[in-house]
Amino acid sequence: MDYVYGPGKNHLFVPGPVNIPEPVLRAMNRNNEDYRSPAIPAMTKTLLEDSGTGAWESALTNTLSPGDRTVSFLIGQFSLLWIDQQQRLNFNVDVVESEWGQGANLDILAEKLAADHSHTIKAICIVHNETATGVTNNLATVRKLLDHYRHPALLLVDGVSSICALDFRMDEWGVDVALTGSQKALSLPTGLGIVCASPKALEASKSAKSVRVFFDWNDYLKFYKLGTFWPYTPSIQLLYGLRAALDLIFEEGLDNVIARHTRMGKATRLAVEAWGLKNCTQKEEWYSDTVTAVLVPPYIDSAEIVKRAWKRYNMSLGLGLNKVAGKVFRIGHLGNLNELQLLGCLAGVEMILKDVGYPVKLGSGVAAACAYLQNNIPMIPSRI
Amino acid sequence: MDYVYGPGKNHLFVPGPVNIPEPVLRAMNRNNEDYRSPAIPAMTKTLLEDSGTGAWESALTNTLSPGDRTVSFLIGQFSLLWIDQQQRLNFNVDVVESEWGQGANLDILAEKLAADHSHTIKAICIVHNETATGVTNNLATVRKLLDHYRHPALLLVDGVSSICALDFRMDEWGVDVALTGSQKALSLPTGLGIVCASPKALEASKSAKSVRVFFDWNDYLKFYKLGTFWPYTPSIQLLYGLRAALDLIFEEGLDNVIARHTRMGKATRLAVEAWGLKNCTQKEEWYSDTVTAVLVPPYIDSAEIVKRAWKRYNMSLGLGLNKVAGKVFRIGHLGNLNELQLLGCLAGVEMILKDVGYPVKLGSGVAAACAYLQNNIPMIPSRI
Amino acid sequence: MDYVYGPGKNHLFVPGPVNIPEPVLRAMNRNNEDYRSPAIPAMTKTLLEDSGTGAWESALTNTLSPGDRTVSFLIGQFSLLWIDQQQRLNFNVDVVESEWGQGANLDILAEKLAADHSHTIKAICIVHNETATGVTNNLATVRKLLDHYRHPALLLVDGVSSICALDFRMDEWGVDVALTGSQKALSLPTGLGIVCASPKALEASKSAKSVRVFFDWNDYLKFYKLGTFWPYTPSIQLLYGLRAALDLIFEEGLDNVIARHTRMGKATRLAVEAWGLKNCTQKEEWYSDTVTAVLVPPYIDSAEIVKRAWKRYNMSLGLGLNKVAGKVFRIGHLGNLNELQLLGCLAGVEMILKDVGYPVKLGSGVAAACAYLQNNIPMIPSRI
Amino acid sequence: MDYVYGPGKNHLFVPGPVNIPEPVLRAMNRNNEDYRSPAIPAMTKTLLEDSGTGAWESALTNTLSPGDRTVSFLIGQFSLLWIDQQQRLNFNVDVVESEWGQGANLDILAEKLAADHSHTIKAICIVHNETATGVTNNLATVRKLLDHYRHPALLLVDGVSSICALDFRMDEWGVDVALTGSQKALSLPTGLGIVCASPKALEASKSAKSVRVFFDWNDYLKFYKLGTFWPYTPSIQLLYGLRAALDLIFEEGLDNVIARHTRMGKATRLAVEAWGLKNCTQKEEWYSDTVTAVLVPPYIDSAEIVKRAWKRYNMSLGLGLNKVAGKVFRIGHLGNLNELQLLGCLAGVEMILKDVGYPVKLGSGVAAACAYLQNNIPMIPSRI
Repeated sequence: MDYVYGPGKNHLFVPGPVNIPEPVLRAMNRNNEDYRSPAIPAMTKTLLEDSGTGAWESALTNTLSPGDRTVSFLIGQFSLLWIDQQQRLNFNVDVVESEWGQGANLDILAEKLAADHSHTIKAICIVHNETATGVTNNLATVRKLLDHYRHPALLLVDGVSSICALDFRMDEWGVDVALTGSQKALSLPTGLGIVCASPKALEASKSAKSVRVFFDWNDYLKFYKLGTFWPYTPSIQLLYGLRAALDLIFEEGLDNVIARHTRMGKATRLAVEAWGLKNCTQKEEWYSDTVTAVLVPPYIDSAEIVKRAWKRYNMSLGLGLNKVAGKVFRIGHLGNLNELQLLGCLAGVEMILKDVGYPVKLGSGVAAACAYLQNNIPMIPSRI
Repeated sequence: MDYVYGPGKNHLFVPGPVNIPEPVLRAMNRNNEDYRSPAIPAMTKTLLEDSGTGAWESALTNTLSPGDRTVSFLIGQFSLLWIDQQQRLNFNVDVVESEWGQGANLDILAEKLAADHSHTIKAICIVHNETATGVTNNLATVRKLLDHYRHPALLLVDGVSSICALDFRMDEWGVDVALTGSQKALSLPTGLGIVCASPKALEASKSAKSVRVFFDWNDYLKFYKLGTFWPYTPSIQLLYGLRAALDLIFEEGLDNVIARHTRMGKATRLAVEAWGLKNCTQKEEWYSDTVTAVLVPPYIDSAEIVKRAWKRYNMSLGLGLNKVAGKVFRIGHLGNLNELQLLGCLAGVEMILKDVGYPVKLGSGVAAACAYLQNNIPMIPSRI
Repeated sequence: MDYVYGPGKNHLFVPGPVNIPEPVLRAMNRNNEDYRSPAIPAMTKTLLEDSGTGAWESALTNTLSPGDRTVSFLIGQFSLLWIDQQQRLNFNVDVVESEWGQGANLDILAEKLAADHSHTIKAICIVHNETATGVTNNLATVRKLLDHYRHPALLLVDGVSSICALDFRMDEWGVDVALTGSQKALSLPTGLGIVCASPKALEASKSAKSVRVFFDWNDYLKFYKLGTFWPYTPSIQLLYGLRAALDLIFEEGLDNVIARHTRMGKATRLAVEAWGLKNCTQKEEWYSDTVTAVLVPPYIDSAEIVKRAWKRYNMSLGLGLNKVAGKVFRIGHLGNLNELQLLGCLAGVEMILKDVGYPVKLGSGVAAACAYLQNNIPMIPSRI
Repeated sequence: MDYVYGPGKNHLFVPGPVNIPEPVLRAMNRNNEDYRSPAIPAMTKTLLEDSGTGAWESALTNTLSPGDRTVSFLIGQFSLLWIDQQQRLNFNVDVVESEWGQGANLDILAEKLAADHSHTIKAICIVHNETATGVTNNLATVRKLLDHYRHPALLLVDGVSSICALDFRMDEWGVDVALTGSQKALSLPTGLGIVCASPKALEASKSAKSVRVFFDWNDYLKFYKLGTFWPYTPSIQLLYGLRAALDLIFEEGLDNVIARHTRMGKATRLAVEAWGLKNCTQKEEWYSDTVTAVLVPPYIDSAEIVKRAWKRYNMSLGLGLNKVAGKVFRIGHLGNLNELQLLGCLAGVEMILKDVGYPVKLGSGVAAACAYLQNNIPMIPSRI
């Protein structure tokens, strides 16, 4: 049943799906239940509401009508796929492209907003953290621009590789729809798309003319009001898993979870620097604390690094996708992960770099990361 | 975490989600994996392709265009919901209604096919087994009619509560799209919609103009051809679970699985008869071997039976839905289930009937079921 | 890996090992931990202390010296094995034998105590519930006799198939050592022997000269005092499982757990009576609420019943052992079990009786059990 | 339920209990079964036969009689505990003591064997790998000496932290009893003691007069001959777990498992050397590939290192025990473990050393280990 057994734990360092904590696996290790019994609504009440791709479609079709103009930023593979979806759903997509490795060009957004006196822009669609290049966009600035130009466009945010890992402020930043997937920072299996909508987005959904059934918020809202929550059969296992995943996040404290991701990102970048390699992300302001895309020298195929990681070291790294295929490999450092796991990964990357002919000084990256981490890892609160 | 603990096993007799076998739970008890590693395509290759509601939408939007005429049979709550979806997706739905408890009116289908010289009917949409009333439709006759009138309409079949439990012949009956969900006869958690398309359906998908992204077969076909299978992150756990579920079905033998469901259906109906109650299904030709809807006398609220089952006996029965709410309760007898489990359920139902004031003779239903089963249960092949 | 797959749940009705509740399985689904970390003592503190056979040896060797006289009651296979152990450990065992199906002969005990002016009897060894015959001994009377004759003998009780299922009063009955195993009413896997000792037993252990190392209480007491609890590596999984098992018992309420076993025993005996069969237990005063041994007519081999249960109905019943081999089969009704599970079992037994040629009236036993249970099953407290 | 939650995986680097592989956890995630059904003997047949402490007692009491002379080597805490057991079991123990950090003094063994013309020595008791000091004894030499002096003493070997990890040759070295525990290199939970006896040991058990019941081989042999294997209720879960653990070892290949442990040991020692610290093991010939005891400078309390590992880095290291308490900390590198896991551990140890004031050069140990490993890790066979 396990076709490619290797000894020891697999070192899972792709930017999703990520490692699932044991208490979450335990919570999901259960038979089915009747979701119409009083037990499931009682438990669901303790949770909040609904895979990236489906969540995207949910956000778009519930708030917009065919032909509506959206401003959307193309900065990597995942923003590209979302734009593709917007186009297939027949929106009028105004694409703002940046070089891969850069963040969303907010100067151009400012220009477009300034020029849009008649409010033809119905929504700004932005990926908070572009998983393909390791770029985090500044959502606070987007909100500032919308406010400055008093523009009523909806702010739709893909938080797939950011929510529960990076600082994310739904209310303060006036986000209208925020979405993520269970297999990312929540550290669950794939299967839940989580969509949070502002009152403004819910209002927009009443008049949005996009055809939708499976993703229609109305069906969910109807059962929400009835207190039974689920229009169709949910995955009992994922609900209990989500309950356990949230319990773990609350136990650690969301601020501590975010601080841990900040440490992981910083430590990884210090290692990359020590190896003499470049971060695909061109400026510090866009550095991502959930995924680092590492540029390799032209004489190396980054796919070979990913392949070696898996074949020799039982480690999963992220491939370079599309425009950066062969040029970058990615280290995912999000979800339920700690520093020694990351250091094992960095030690592995060093050996692989040597394997493929890059003149790395073994131990250099780990040393740089350790020098920072040894000063910054806090005591585990429950163990003090 | 378990809000409503009761001692012993919950007796899960709703028509889905159903009991998950231990080997399947075990197979799903695992950490995430990188779905881009060679392991997942290798395993996926051993499986076939993608919740009821989503599978419905997949079947419809990939084969039909807005405005297309469908003939669709309204015989219970689930056929009703599918029709509602067809209407919301802007098809021209020609609804053929039957009294709840009857099967699809195929005489009217014959008339419509006979009259449709210009082939305006693009698809026949039919639920193989209506879970709300326990009615199984005769798909062989539908095919016979289509052939008789040499009508090219697609045959789209909801096999949610039939596939892997009832006799189902995709090729022989010329089914163009067949769909089911993981939480039914496959005995998995909710989360997989399984859609099988004929070459004719795949051909139709090339010209179908319904807007679709998440459910678009093209994305799946593209990755299918690449041999990597998955356009988006799949649930690793459900894939391994499906592998285990199929292994169990093959170990038992699909014919034996179907024969077991036949026994379960028959035994349940004999008990209902012994209790002096009526089956919601009006004629023997429509009797369902996966779910039995039992009509209660007018002075009893069937919802009270379901409530008592759960509150006193730790058993989950199916409610009556919509038109038959309060009038029927349902016994689901599908999936990985054996005869003694069913007999425990039937004994429980007898006690509940007495609880709510129905003058049942305790033991009568169990006796009737046992008299049949004792003559018909085969030896377990692996134990002979 | 599962050599003898049969569809559906196995119906486990042997008197141990018993069904494990899902929350317990979940609690044990975990990696190893360092048992010397502060986590394990903290958790152990919430538990109490240490398989039947091993627990027997622990009770005996820690309190007695070679040559010591014990009075021990032979009433079935498990009391026989304990006596065998006492003899092999070189005690002077004064065996009081009863016909299998009868309880301990307490009249003879009275005589022996009355005659033992010099207190040569060092311990009374008694099985609370003889699992082979379904006989429960009256421990209160044993205590009364000891008190009446002011006899200082230790009272050593095998509570393997009674503790956590039958009424058991360590303090009130002056039990000096009580022992059980995890695979019985606690509903855990095999692996823990639980031994509770009175202050008097602990005192006796200081001078007991039996050779012991693995089972020596002193090693446990030493680490108990240190607050680290474990002299050797414990099973982390069983500790967490025990925590979960106790939580379930406390959630249900120990009195309710015992009342549930009383219902199960009564219902089973009513079924046996309805079938026209005899209970191996000869008098009502000895009836066991955890296991019922059913006598079959001479023309039937009870082993054939057990074999058929497993081969045709996926049910596990208990064999007749030793003197009652071929003459009785046993229904275990202890642990985390509810009434509908038992009724499924009883329905199965009826069919098997018919299979082997006994002229049972199908449904009769279930009817008798239901008539009683329908009046006596309480609402599940958490669901009211 | 998890009192001391820390994010990410716990880094378990004690010399047992060790990490359990996922397929093994899955195999054990199951309900109880009737161990008297034909399924369990069928499965048991595929396994071999029976915690450290209990296995010790089993080996001794089945082969020796009170008063028998044993030669036993005191080289650390675990050999000490075994000697204590031998004394408590009333053997005449001839203790050969070495400084902790040295191996068994085989010169003295040679002298004793040479002098023992009347064959008063009944057994040589030797720990293959002393877990407290990381010392591996040379069993081949022991056999050579026995053969040279034509001495018939039994060779009883504690293989707890060696079997399935180090080279171990039962037949070639003429080992009479070899024992291990499930929680060590087999990577299972605690709960199984595995004892292998030679024909000579079985012969000795016929006349051995030590009192034994729970551990008596005769009971096992009786049921072994009957083909039902188990005199008492075994842990179904551990049996299935053992099956899975053996499957994994056979899939990797036992030679590859041993080679992996050799790499792990060598890499760890290279790191220790790079840190400028000393191995507790005094000579290369005794270096252990399953556990490394690291001496710390006198101004550091090694217990503080272990405490910090757990409180700050979510890592479990082994304490120094008894004579070396406070002086050494231990890195366990046995069981189902791979190189990147070890490198994460070594990086962690470096940071902790700095935490406690030792002037380590961060990255130095990891660099030394990587330089060796990068040249020596093979491709994973199933992934080539």
